[in-house]
Amino acid sequence: MAKDKKLVEAITSMETDFAQWYTDVVRKAELIEYSSVRGCVILRPNGYAIWENIQKELDRRFKETGVENVYMPMFIPESLLQKEKDHVEGFAPEVAWVTHGGLEPLQERLCVRPTSETLFCDLYSNIVQSYRDLPKLYNQWCSVVRWEKTTRPFLRSMEFLWQEGHTCHATAEEAEERTVQMLDVYADFCEQILAIPMIKGRKTDKEKFAGAHSTYTIEALMHDGKALQSGTSHNFGDGFAQAFGIQYTDKQNKLQYAHQTSWGMSTRIIGAVIMVHGDESGLVLPPRIAPVQVMIIPIAQHKEGVLDKAFELKDRLSGFRVKVDDSDKSPGWKFSEQEMRGIPVRIEIGPKDIEANQAVIVRRDTREKTVVSLDELETKLAEILDTMQSEMLERARTHRDTHTCEAKTYEEFKTAIKEKPGFVKAMWCGDRECEEKIKEDTTATSRCMPFEQEQIADTCICCGKPAKTMVYWGKAY
Amino acid sequence: MAKDKKLVEAITSMETDFAQWYTDVVRKAELIEYSSVRGCVILRPNGYAIWENIQKELDRRFKETGVENVYMPMFIPESLLQKEKDHVEGFAPEVAWVTHGGLEPLQERLCVRPTSETLFCDLYSNIVQSYRDLPKLYNQWCSVVRWEKTTRPFLRSMEFLWQEGHTCHATAEEAEERTVQMLDVYADFCEQILAIPMIKGRKTDKEKFAGAHSTYTIEALMHDGKALQSGTSHNFGDGFAQAFGIQYTDKQNKLQYAHQTSWGMSTRIIGAVIMVHGDESGLVLPPRIAPVQVMIIPIAQHKEGVLDKAFELKDRLSGFRVKVDDSDKSPGWKFSEQEMRGIPVRIEIGPKDIEANQAVIVRRDTREKTVVSLDELETKLAEILDTMQSEMLERARTHRDTHTCEAKTYEEFKTAIKEKPGFVKAMWCGDRECEEKIKEDTTATSRCMPFEQEQIADTCICCGKPAKTMVYWGKAY
Ligand SMILES: [Zn+2]
Ligand SMILES: [Zn+2]
Repeated sequence: MAKDKKLVEAITSMETDFAQWYTDVVRKAELIEYSSVRGCVILRPNGYAIWENIQKELDRRFKETGVENVYMPMFIPESLLQKEKDHVEGFAPEVAWVTHGGLEPLQERLCVRPTSETLFCDLYSNIVQSYRDLPKLYNQWCSVVRWEKTTRPFLRSMEFLWQEGHTCHATAEEAEERTVQMLDVYADFCEQILAIPMIKGRKTDKEKFAGAHSTYTIEALMHDGKALQSGTSHNFGDGFAQAFGIQYTDKQNKLQYAHQTSWGMSTRIIGAVIMVHGDESGLVLPPRIAPVQVMIIPIAQHKEGVLDKAFELKDRLSGFRVKVDDSDKSPGWKFSEQEMRGIPVRIEIGPKDIEANQAVIVRRDTREKTVVSLDELETKLAEILDTMQSEMLERARTHRDTHTCEAKTYEEFKTAIKEKPGFVKAMWCGDRECEEKIKEDTTATSRCMPFEQEQIADTCICCGKPAKTMVYWGKAY
Repeated sequence: MAKDKKLVEAITSMETDFAQWYTDVVRKAELIEYSSVRGCVILRPNGYAIWENIQKELDRRFKETGVENVYMPMFIPESLLQKEKDHVEGFAPEVAWVTHGGLEPLQERLCVRPTSETLFCDLYSNIVQSYRDLPKLYNQWCSVVRWEKTTRPFLRSMEFLWQEGHTCHATAEEAEERTVQMLDVYADFCEQILAIPMIKGRKTDKEKFAGAHSTYTIEALMHDGKALQSGTSHNFGDGFAQAFGIQYTDKQNKLQYAHQTSWGMSTRIIGAVIMVHGDESGLVLPPRIAPVQVMIIPIAQHKEGVLDKAFELKDRLSGFRVKVDDSDKSPGWKFSEQEMRGIPVRIEIGPKDIEANQAVIVRRDTREKTVVSLDELETKLAEILDTMQSEMLERARTHRDTHTCEAKTYEEFKTAIKEKPGFVKAMWCGDRECEEKIKEDTTATSRCMPFEQEQIADTCICCGKPAKTMVYWGKAY
């Protein structure tokens, strides 16, 4: 048992040092490995498999709304990046520049895409002519590069994997509808699959995407009370269309500018899964996203028939994602590994269980043990995984709600930000100066103006002028 | 009907100018679009969907052999690329260099990966310690960049999508076994799914991968008689392990170098599908890889009940990948589009068909029409698609076999290369000088030394010395 403890002891307690706990978990659960490239990590099989499941789920949802996948070049010529003024200002300071191809210097340098609005606009300006060509609902799965000074696995990385959807519409209404629709897709996916409840809302002008008319966001609360922006959806209006000349002839044969959106979710969301659900023993993965849902751990596996039974159960449970740990490690060590990796349940089966025609199912999140007859293994297992999935969501919701408070005065606000990790709801006048002062005074940023508004007070928390909107504030990753 | 002809007339005849036919087809079938980035193309929905199906099929086959997916950084520090001498010599002249991050020059420049051997080796040197850690069977799906002077869609592109598998083994035997196993996976996939027969063999030293002990290849013959290298699998022996210090302790607690392989297939294979199966009307996709297998084209769709029936059939055919073309184009135009896109069959259904409880199934490859009762639509459709799939393979095999000849003398060889597009089988002494002379004299290159050897003659076609091996020669893409 001494050896069994080592794996858990290798990670820092989350209550002592949450940041170190996080780093320990991503390493010990073998999600990532550091690389020789500064700021870039390697997604190992345990980490990449989570991303594959996220891709599968999101991709299906996108396609159900008519989205098609494409692939664009990873390079953007400098002149193309410069076509939309706000956009280039936002991204130029943080891109990687290719200046040489083979042994030759390039005539025009190329940046490695930080995002691909400019390339999609360039494409749309070539292939959109008539209202019959609209809408275009394209998406791509790729990696992007942003030259970050400080990086953290999943949360902030020089290179990260994501999807970026880019759509082109005839009317402003249609573009707005699509922007909200995709935010809803993200929020539903996070709640249903990742068991993370989201607050949906709009970003302030200060926080919106470079070049967007409006940016919608989903915000989640981590275990330590910090917020994480988990997905964004932007309405560009016809700003990019004007910069890139994306025009179509309408039914009356009149030239019109197209209206565009873009929306993205990245491997960052894996950071949210870790920081919302993880505990002192490591990762806890929601059953619907877990690459391995069930680890069968044979007890006294050298005894005759035990391993055979374990593999027989695995074959029977083909409707689930199941593995057998038949390594020569001790059962205790195997339990620790299964817990560190966040595998939702383990099934323990030994000679006595076999004799009694039963097995023990142990939930990762609550450690609850259920002895089940092998005759009803499939049904019970499905029940336990479903219960676990919905209880994880409820637990995350409760945590968020108990870590959300209201502030009516600036004193209340400052105290709350300082002493109560979590969201603070407070009124705002809409002026950027107040937003900036609040950040300076408290380090909290506006997370979003939620779609579900409440009238907490009549005046801005900061300046006292009439309030326009309620804002979720918080410290953020 | 005048309008219907336009789409087909827009492509050059393949017998007049095969290269131009190819370019016309990839554009008119909307597989690709040119981008503002020299040498980089955009994969449009019709093109990317083929790649998605290839990914799905290959990924499943890889995983069945125990392979796990990972993701590595896209950048490689110059010093890391230089660790294996042959490797850097092979790739350094054709990589893109990142020299600036944000506004700052980098201390060490980074290349955009042309392939990731060096990164995988770096990882393995960190995570492989004991024989218990082996084998490592990793793969990644990503894009790579090679600074090519001349480019052609799918066939040669500055950036292209591929998968690269990298495995690490305890013994030389195991590495060799894996190298051959993955070549077999590729060949089976190409035959079974893409309907392209492959010749499996080994590359000569001149043609092998930079840094490999041996390179195995699958070679296909295109419609114009040129060869296309379609997938490769490399055995590195312990060469990279020595350069990167990948060592493990064996069961006797002795330090040993690991043995490695890598293997890759890229979007290039889509070029093969086009050039093996295409005809004067455009693309012809094998049913098993076609993103849309069946296009239902309503006849007189304005008549009551026709469109409803078309969508009813679509719903019934949920076991297939089916679309209804309900656009306001004429049926003739829709036929041309379906043919240009290579959709394997179309189902024509009009008022008279509905009355007679029937539909017409038209095969894309042979144009064969089958009138089927709606009562047996699913069965007949499945039969027709199966027959089409296997006949496409047989046709491609016959084409290859009738475009393969033997040469016993150098005169025969030169005449064959000049006058008979296709493979020429001829004996070789094994000396690089002869291989280079043959290329200089004829522009033909050694495609592979096939696993299935034949003793055509006893002497080298070129120098007359005793022959060591039979080689497939040909002009290649
Ligand atoms: Zn204010
Ligand atoms: Zn010779």
